[in-house]
Amino acid sequence: MKDKKLVQEITAMDADFAQWYTDVVKKAELIGYTSVKGCVIIRPYGYAIWENIQADLNRRFKETGHENLYMPMLIPESLLKKEADHVDGFAPECAWVTVGGSEELSERLCIRPTSEVLFCEHFRDVVQSYRDLPKLYNQWANIMRWEKTTRPFLRSREFLWQEGHTLHETEQEARDETLQMLEVYRDFYAETLAIPVVWGRKTEKEKFAGAEESYTVEPMMHNGVGLQGGTSHYFGDGFARAFDIKFAGRDNTIQYPHQTSWGVTTRMIGAVIMVHGDDSGLRLPPRVAPVQAVVIPVMQHKEGVLEAATALTDSLKSAGIRVKLDDRDQSPGWKYSQHEMQGVPLRIELGPRDIEAGNCVLARRDTGEKIVTSIDGIADTVAALLETIQADMYQRALENLTTKTSTATSYPQLLELAENSPGFIRAMWCGDTTCEDKIKDDTGGVKSRCIPFEQENLASDCVVCGKPAAHMVVWGRQY
Amino acid sequence: MKDKKLVQEITAMDADFAQWYTDVVKKAELIGYTSVKGCVIIRPYGYAIWENIQADLNRRFKETGHENLYMPMLIPESLLKKEADHVDGFAPECAWVTVGGSEELSERLCIRPTSEVLFCEHFRDVVQSYRDLPKLYNQWANIMRWEKTTRPFLRSREFLWQEGHTLHETEQEARDETLQMLEVYRDFYAETLAIPVVWGRKTEKEKFAGAEESYTVEPMMHNGVGLQGGTSHYFGDGFARAFDIKFAGRDNTIQYPHQTSWGVTTRMIGAVIMVHGDDSGLRLPPRVAPVQAVVIPVMQHKEGVLEAATALTDSLKSAGIRVKLDDRDQSPGWKYSQHEMQGVPLRIELGPRDIEAGNCVLARRDTGEKIVTSIDGIADTVAALLETIQADMYQRALENLTTKTSTATSYPQLLELAENSPGFIRAMWCGDTTCEDKIKDDTGGVKSRCIPFEQENLASDCVVCGKPAAHMVVWGRQY
Repeated sequence: MKDKKLVQEITAMDADFAQWYTDVVKKAELIGYTSVKGCVIIRPYGYAIWENIQADLNRRFKETGHENLYMPMLIPESLLKKEADHVDGFAPECAWVTVGGSEELSERLCIRPTSEVLFCEHFRDVVQSYRDLPKLYNQWANIMRWEKTTRPFLRSREFLWQEGHTLHETEQEARDETLQMLEVYRDFYAETLAIPVVWGRKTEKEKFAGAEESYTVEPMMHNGVGLQGGTSHYFGDGFARAFDIKFAGRDNTIQYPHQTSWGVTTRMIGAVIMVHGDDSGLRLPPRVAPVQAVVIPVMQHKEGVLEAATALTDSLKSAGIRVKLDDRDQSPGWKYSQHEMQGVPLRIELGPRDIEAGNCVLARRDTGEKIVTSIDGIADTVAALLETIQADMYQRALENLTTKTSTATSYPQLLELAENSPGFIRAMWCGDTTCEDKIKDDTGGVKSRCIPFEQENLASDCVVCGKPAAHMVVWGRQY
Repeated sequence: MKDKKLVQEITAMDADFAQWYTDVVKKAELIGYTSVKGCVIIRPYGYAIWENIQADLNRRFKETGHENLYMPMLIPESLLKKEADHVDGFAPECAWVTVGGSEELSERLCIRPTSEVLFCEHFRDVVQSYRDLPKLYNQWANIMRWEKTTRPFLRSREFLWQEGHTLHETEQEARDETLQMLEVYRDFYAETLAIPVVWGRKTEKEKFAGAEESYTVEPMMHNGVGLQGGTSHYFGDGFARAFDIKFAGRDNTIQYPHQTSWGVTTRMIGAVIMVHGDDSGLRLPPRVAPVQAVVIPVMQHKEGVLEAATALTDSLKSAGIRVKLDDRDQSPGWKYSQHEMQGVPLRIELGPRDIEAGNCVLARRDTGEKIVTSIDGIADTVAALLETIQADMYQRALENLTTKTSTATSYPQLLELAENSPGFIRAMWCGDTTCEDKIKDDTGGVKSRCIPFEQENLASDCVVCGKPAAHMVVWGRQY
């Protein structure tokens, strides 16, 4: 009964992308549902992807001089209100604790929707002199935002993330940090998740509540829909003034420090699914795959098969490859489809005839290609093939991004593209929020993804109002 | 001004142990206070200790076949109420979310005080057959308990922990798991934290809400006070029945599985401080120390000193030692006292004369001993010395535990010891909660630590009531 369920067909991507996504997160055992609306269980296979993401990012954060710490999860309402833009942005989606034990609280506490105000309160306590700067902090934490519509990984009431918070002596240092961390994200998406991004600055309308400037990396899902993939914010000294964070500078004057924050979340797992997946389920880039290669003994009850499969597994393990031997009492076909569903990058089949010939069969999850190869030197072969798969997956995602990005030089053309060509649209913009709003209203949801760093002068006028253009913007729908 | 603060005296342990503890957590920069009562910031130096603890335990959990996952942090009140003993134990200290966004919730949600009920709900969904067992799960998470009196690390409203939750086909398997994980904790305390423990079963009165049996590891602080250091619970099938978790057994009958849970928390950091610390501050066992050795250049502005110190640091780093070069523009004496406060196990001093002689000076934090040694082969010397320090710290803690453990064979003797000899008391007990309560009342707080696995027949009668004794119990005050 259970066996059947695992090989059941999932909805085809082209038939219903949303249903395909829901099927995959469930059948690949990434997510479990609970009686808590809008909150999900990240099951062991999904959580193992997150642990790989954490390890990789932690290495990058430490290489750039950051330290991890842990802030309380509850924020008093009065503290949240200290920075005006910030509270306006977050208060509407806070979950509020009003009772502790059996007592009504005198002040209600929200579960952190983000932790800027806590970091600010701490910075005020520990920073007195320029010698105390910079503070380069990061936190891994759970976050709560009372969303109305939720979708596993992409938008849930509780999610996991990291939030970097840094404090600097000068504006330039803080601006450099903001862009440095955006580049860390861009490189992480490309190198580790095999996902190319469009990157640049957010428009005034789309920036973070309380930031002077917000920057973003924006991947495109297989169906052409965008996703805010990670953001890095320059705060100026706005929070410092609101929270009275001051330091004695090198010239002995009292100054306000400059601040940044930056974060990525478990929604990156959603991006991995929707960028790389196919009609057989998940396809995981080797660098974040919990299992990079699975060894499947064929006719495992024949003499010598299990021994040979175990030896093969051990030699891959010694080479540092995340490998699993699947010797469960199930048919190879059933195992194949389960590992396909779970997106294991490489399947290694080994049967009596292979063993006799000194060979095994490698089956790539990304292309379906089967390669007969010698067991001799298998660890090197597999390591190299995993690198090839990683690179090919990036290329395929890049082709999708390129193919599904169009250019509009007139408003009717933009509307036509928004209606009929799923994907991103490049178009010139005057910089006025009115025009941004008009595009969103007229298209039923196309928003500015960002003002990319790589600008191109597509035309001299705003695609909406015809006034002189200030920027080229990439527009698109989003999750 | 700031410089002075760091070398200020802390309160002496003997004068006021509680104040000494508070001084150390603050001045060693482990903890920061916030405007959220009962919740603290775990600052980077404190959090780095936690990261070392996590890495070590994660390795042990994976070696014993466990997988990490993540459950929601909110629990609907109705779900918490499903197991009667459990809700009685936890409901009084729950923090309740009653408002989400701008809406009053129809059912209030508590922030998890522990996650048994969520795991049970999930087990019910994913377990159908004996083939789905065992489930060996662990979660790293933040926890909220609305405590009235709080103390950093030891007892705070929010804390970090891991909670293992496992489900088994048979009672024997579940009982074996319960004891296996207790042994993991015992070994972790001994080998990694350099802390010996008393270990055994909790009495009926002290066991976990909903458990059939609770087991515990109990370290003793330097002042003789105990601490529940980690617990492992056997649940039988009580939760399974309450949550209707069933499976088809090997004989095709429908059965209830057997369950365990086990956890340790950030209070272990409190134990490390209070077991090993001294009047100069923290003393960290090398295996959890964020910095195992600090290199301090003496007369660092003299030619060649900084270069030699850097080379020394690099050679230690290459050998996998967590080492830091402190080349800040401060006096060596000021640096010494800061690193002493922060408990860095080994200080390495290197000045012009040392360099000329091909030597450096090693200063042990645990004993204060100074050793002149050759720079040649320094990595091996330091690695060996760190192991010696680790072993010596364990021995010193064991001596404290042994010295401060007494035996009482009469009730007046027990009362006298409780009054005048801080530490643990071994005494016989009939097994009746009335006698346990009487000891607590008569002594103002001495409780059963556990019924140790290693029993000794001190007398034939209960130390309180004189009826036949059932067990030897270790009694003591606790944090």
